[in-house]
Amino acid sequence: MRQSQLLMPTLREAPSEAEAVSHQLLLRAGLVRQLAAGVYTYLPLGRRVLRKLEAIVREEMDKAGGQEVLMPALQPAELWRQSGRYEVYGPELVRLRDRHDREFALGPTHEEVITALMRGETSSYRQLPATLYQIQTKFRDEQRPRYGLLRGREFLMKDAYSFDADWEGLHRSYVAMYDAYHRIFARCGLTFRAVEADAGSIGGEGGTHEFMALADIGEDTIASCTCCDYAANLEKAEYGIATNHKADVVEPTKTKRLHTPGSKTIVQLTESLGLEATAFIKTLIFIADGKPVAILVRGDHEVNDIKVKQALGVVSLSLADQETTERVTGAPTGFAGPVGLTIPVYADIAAAQISSAIVGANEEDYHLVDVQPGVHFTYEASGDYRNAAMGDRCPRCEEGRLQFNRGIEIGHVFKLGTKYSEAMEATFLDAAGKAQPLIMGCYGIGVSRLLSAVIEQHADEQGIVWPASIAPYRVHIVPVSAKDETQMALAFQLAERLEAAGIEWLLDDRDERPGVKFKDADLIGIPLRITVGRQAASGIVEVKRRSEAAAKELSIEEALTMASMLAVEH
Amino acid sequence: MRQSQLLMPTLREAPSEAEAVSHQLLLRAGLVRQLAAGVYTYLPLGRRVLRKLEAIVREEMDKAGGQEVLMPALQPAELWRQSGRYEVYGPELVRLRDRHDREFALGPTHEEVITALMRGETSSYRQLPATLYQIQTKFRDEQRPRYGLLRGREFLMKDAYSFDADWEGLHRSYVAMYDAYHRIFARCGLTFRAVEADAGSIGGEGGTHEFMALADIGEDTIASCTCCDYAANLEKAEYGIATNHKADVVEPTKTKRLHTPGSKTIVQLTESLGLEATAFIKTLIFIADGKPVAILVRGDHEVNDIKVKQALGVVSLSLADQETTERVTGAPTGFAGPVGLTIPVYADIAAAQISSAIVGANEEDYHLVDVQPGVHFTYEASGDYRNAAMGDRCPRCEEGRLQFNRGIEIGHVFKLGTKYSEAMEATFLDAAGKAQPLIMGCYGIGVSRLLSAVIEQHADEQGIVWPASIAPYRVHIVPVSAKDETQMALAFQLAERLEAAGIEWLLDDRDERPGVKFKDADLIGIPLRITVGRQAASGIVEVKRRSEAAAKELSIEEALTMASMLAVEH
Repeated sequence: MRQSQLLMPTLREAPSEAEAVSHQLLLRAGLVRQLAAGVYTYLPLGRRVLRKLEAIVREEMDKAGGQEVLMPALQPAELWRQSGRYEVYGPELVRLRDRHDREFALGPTHEEVITALMRGETSSYRQLPATLYQIQTKFRDEQRPRYGLLRGREFLMKDAYSFDADWEGLHRSYVAMYDAYHRIFARCGLTFRAVEADAGSIGGEGGTHEFMALADIGEDTIASCTCCDYAANLEKAEYGIATNHKADVVEPTKTKRLHTPGSKTIVQLTESLGLEATAFIKTLIFIADGKPVAILVRGDHEVNDIKVKQALGVVSLSLADQETTERVTGAPTGFAGPVGLTIPVYADIAAAQISSAIVGANEEDYHLVDVQPGVHFTYEASGDYRNAAMGDRCPRCEEGRLQFNRGIEIGHVFKLGTKYSEAMEATFLDAAGKAQPLIMGCYGIGVSRLLSAVIEQHADEQGIVWPASIAPYRVHIVPVSAKDETQMALAFQLAERLEAAGIEWLLDDRDERPGVKFKDADLIGIPLRITVGRQAASGIVEVKRRSEAAAKELSIEEALTMASMLAVEH
Repeated sequence: MRQSQLLMPTLREAPSEAEAVSHQLLLRAGLVRQLAAGVYTYLPLGRRVLRKLEAIVREEMDKAGGQEVLMPALQPAELWRQSGRYEVYGPELVRLRDRHDREFALGPTHEEVITALMRGETSSYRQLPATLYQIQTKFRDEQRPRYGLLRGREFLMKDAYSFDADWEGLHRSYVAMYDAYHRIFARCGLTFRAVEADAGSIGGEGGTHEFMALADIGEDTIASCTCCDYAANLEKAEYGIATNHKADVVEPTKTKRLHTPGSKTIVQLTESLGLEATAFIKTLIFIADGKPVAILVRGDHEVNDIKVKQALGVVSLSLADQETTERVTGAPTGFAGPVGLTIPVYADIAAAQISSAIVGANEEDYHLVDVQPGVHFTYEASGDYRNAAMGDRCPRCEEGRLQFNRGIEIGHVFKLGTKYSEAMEATFLDAAGKAQPLIMGCYGIGVSRLLSAVIEQHADEQGIVWPASIAPYRVHIVPVSAKDETQMALAFQLAERLEAAGIEWLLDDRDERPGVKFKDADLIGIPLRITVGRQAASGIVEVKRRSEAAAKELSIEEALTMASMLAVEH
């Protein structure tokens, strides 16, 4: 492609509304333009990258046994009523009426449509399993669209749905998608984690993983191991508990009262006393199924509600209000401690292991020092009641430690079970001739969001650094001077050779200063740049990978070899 | 692909709501399913064909210099107000409000969006020409969706828009698209005509062609030449006028009065008198710019309003009401004739050439016989005032005659000129530094509609007969018995060989009776069927083209050669 004929409006400055790096670069490199909040047009370069992402997704879906379909965006509200989601979904669901006043939704997802389809087309277990997928435009009326393609209102998704006759079948379908997702994201050049996500209220007897691309702009926190591939959302992260660790055997001592006026938080205490947070035990009063309990965690740790609920076997759990805390502890919030409490006390393992701790004194402006768990107070039980923390051991492998990252959700696999098939009466006849609800899984990838995620991970000060697998072009040919006939002739000769080898090229034939050309080249980030300059007459060009600083002087043949190697790499 | 794993729900009977052959077959062959009126899901086979159509369109658009973009379906109403179409468009435009109560339309077309985009990105004539296209889902809330994908409410279109600095440039862009459309439709295996369409109210100083696939279900009538490629919508069709033909020189005779009680129409007259319609002259009273005139056409011809308007140089033209006709002719409608009229008379050439005609007598229940034009009545002028008719000479070539067909509009190319760029103030600076409106063209192809159009042309009693270029698979391998190990082994061996040769195959591995398999095979219409039966042990298979009745017994190698030749053909 000749650059002079390409609609590629690069910008020197990022528009002020773009916060995320990827959003800035999408605009600056001329990949997209905003039409309305969260609604974008993909310009030629952006469309090319999107098509490469689509191709990778399609290829891996097909390999994993998926069958491609295409479902409509217009969905009758009636179907959403059958599943029970029409009222529940809230204002994110775009609703409209047709000319005959019939209600429709613009699909943010297609569980209802596919379940209604399979309800009509599946009669026997012999037609199962089946996994159907589509790459299709979705609509979600976000309250605050932002970060460019990361949170848009109209976006491209791959959504897949599996149908099985039993739970073992669902598991096989799930694993096939899970594995395909790994291949897809790896081929896109992404650093990502498959995270054990909290099923929340959707889950059946299932599992669910979120695929998170690591990036600071991400809205979720992920714990992952430095050695193995363990990863989980913060809320669900486990960690290796050092069970062999025992509190040092020390002589029982007496506790001391310490005057700590106004110091209600660990931060205030560590500052005023000059001690590490690990020296403290935090005492938090919760209401568990209506009754007050005290949860103890080490000063540097955070209580994890989900773990506490599970450990205590309660349904509801919430922090006690100030009044309850004062009634239970006899002191205002900030000075609660385990010593002398009459309500049940539960100590997180790390808190129980402190041999000599500082705790609240249950008295305003006072703390107790030299408190020995099990000696100066007792507890109902000790267990894992806290969030994983930086430096914790990996729960899966021997050597690893947990690290924390922010992540962008790029994919999600989910065992739906019979949630939709039961609500919508989508059944099949099993081998015994009995009607059974279809057992379903659903699997999403934010295809347009991938574009942003890749840029978040593959950019530098100058611009985008595309992985070759999804770059809009593989080779950028830049003649230094459009007026130099020798340079232009060699540049076009190179283009012809690349074309013949099936390698996509962009040739900057614009009559611009070299500085402008190089700046644009770095901005749009094509993997290999071949600069045709003064040595064109002797057939020497300068070859530079976008990802490397150094350039090499090579002959035409060497340059072509390098270009074709790059094409093979991915 | 193994057929047992493919979602391909064939139906023995066409659902009663499906009138069009293509609609019936789309449903019966399991290509689509309806979700709501005019809203369809594409099942795997349908999606495959759609993807092949997309690929052909994309390839030819790229070859013609088009740059692919992707614009949103959600379009701010504000843009439609700028172009002036928001109120004009009517109920076909799907309108909605977002959560912040801002008005949007779901794009039925993208002139507004692309003009707004180019308004922002085009500053100089040096950035022109540019042709941008997309393959994207459109919405149009049809009053009466019907014929399956032929008139839907959500459908896939390719729309392209060209931007030029001058009218010569627009013409070049237009021709490039016009030529690309010919290649696209030919590659899809369609019989079609590029028809000179009436620009109607949209047109600038342009041209416009509709591409019509010939099919009886079509909603338009097209005149086309039996020899050359002349074609036009009926309203615009010209024909070759035999100017050398003169009325036979006959002695002036006297006219005779004929009693024709109740015979007001040509049909009634030809029946009661036993004469051909060509023996009659019809006299129609029109009001042209407020004044009554009489237009004469031969009994078998129809007046063409557009031609009359142009010939008479009037702006408004409509048939006179009964009262006016009676006042002007002195007789009720049905008995008007040119003899003795005092208003201006205009005779179509064919009418003027009748040497001895039958005309109305301007007297109830009477006609005049032996009427000689120019002798018994005079006329202001003689010219082309009628629709082209079957058997007329072609207006362009020597030998051809006009034939008439019904057609499905599959594409449209249109010189928009500055209609949108002026309304939306989309300008560029010309070489002299002066702001000029962009000169635009727009070019549409109904991609999903193509699917129906191809089936309308490529089907027989048994089902679809896909052209190889867009068939969902190239080869259908049908082992007669799924229980016969020799047959199945050979079938899978064939599949492997085809796979290696890059030829898409479908293998019917279902445990069904041969009759069921063959019926399904004919219904879904894969171009080549290879039946593996009793002679499997000796490596002999039966090969049959879907388009031919005869099958051949061939060796495996011969069958593979035939399959690969088929792949090359297209």
